[in-house]
Amino acid sequence: MARETALIVAGGKGTRIKSALPKQFIELNGKPILLHTIEAFIRYSSSMKIVLVLPEDDFPIWSAICEKFKFEFPIELQKGGETRFQSVRNGLQKVEDGLVAIHDGVRPLVSEDIIGASFRLAAIHQCAIAAVRLKESIRMTDQDNTKAMDRSRFRLIQTPQTFNVDLIKKAYEIKEDPSLTDDASVAERAGHIVSLFEGSYENIKITTPEDLIVAAALMENRGR
Amino acid sequence: MARETALIVAGGKGTRIKSALPKQFIELNGKPILLHTIEAFIRYSSSMKIVLVLPEDDFPIWSAICEKFKFEFPIELQKGGETRFQSVRNGLQKVEDGLVAIHDGVRPLVSEDIIGASFRLAAIHQCAIAAVRLKESIRMTDQDNTKAMDRSRFRLIQTPQTFNVDLIKKAYEIKEDPSLTDDASVAERAGHIVSLFEGSYENIKITTPEDLIVAAALMENRGR
Repeated sequence: MARETALIVAGGKGTRIKSALPKQFIELNGKPILLHTIEAFIRYSSSMKIVLVLPEDDFPIWSAICEKFKFEFPIELQKGGETRFQSVRNGLQKVEDGLVAIHDGVRPLVSEDIIGASFRLAAIHQCAIAAVRLKESIRMTDQDNTKAMDRSRFRLIQTPQTFNVDLIKKAYEIKEDPSLTDDASVAERAGHIVSLFEGSYENIKITTPEDLIVAAALMENRGR
Repeated sequence: MARETALIVAGGKGTRIKSALPKQFIELNGKPILLHTIEAFIRYSSSMKIVLVLPEDDFPIWSAICEKFKFEFPIELQKGGETRFQSVRNGLQKVEDGLVAIHDGVRPLVSEDIIGASFRLAAIHQCAIAAVRLKESIRMTDQDNTKAMDRSRFRLIQTPQTFNVDLIKKAYEIKEDPSLTDDASVAERAGHIVSLFEGSYENIKITTPEDLIVAAALMENRGR
């Protein structure tokens, strides 16, 4: 079996949530979001390698969290860049070979099933991106008007975005560009086919204050 | 001021939620979802006309709910059709003139602000559709591959979808077609410009079991 690495990207400054603390460190049901996220990967496999990309300024916060929660799993820390693109590129320097699941630090509700599926499918297709169908109608804006689109043809993209390590490292050698909003678009720009698989509506990204409420409720429900 | 009517569409059979009871009747924080939805409109204006479209078989459930919750606001009941299109068309028969806000019975978290904005904007533009920006990247599927899209150009569509009554009644005279997934697309097909306004991420449509958990948490938080 190929070596499996998780690359957790937690570079965000939390500007969209009114909190002095970057959002990945906010506690959800008694534990920082980022720790929930990392523990999801450890539940999937306690032998996996985990690389955590954080802004260098936040390294002391991470140390304090490890101490407070007696978290002793060996994590490789890497410092983040100015942008998500740069943070992932930095993180990939610490990833050797096999497969890498790149995952948002603020998606703590990822399940072991989804992590497992992403590695299995990436082993076959070189790439496996978690995605969900749209629950609602979608329109495209077009100057003063808007246009109904066929929602069955669209998918909302989540993480993990899992890749063959050589492929994604090479893809990240391209020039950075603001339209590259995720790893899948980097792989696409480098000429690769981007394969999706069914993610989960529960696997939300915590971005806004209401997301915190939603995530806490989903997590509590899961614990029951 | 133009007369304001709410047309609440609650025709769904709840096939996606494992419950014998159609989902609009499931209790959320002690009260049926549909009653929460209707009360949101009454909070906005206690003098507004409300038309409720329900499958005829469910009329007795509605009566029982009114009795149990001592709900005495005068509602005009209309029987639903086989599809949402037919249900809305039936409902529009009970709407006279002015403006009509067509709203999903299973969106109980709609706020007074959003309802108010939809009427104000529809008075100006003939049409005002609640919509939100995408929080996540979006891809379009294309045979074996998928393609990144510019998410800033897309909006996820909610309700209320509020219209000049004459305009939407006339638009609903067109032939039914499965690609017409909402009222905005009916108006578009009839040749009208579809104007959007900023909805809310809390204004979720309850479709899946996890939506129930999310809605309950958001509602409880709002009550605090």
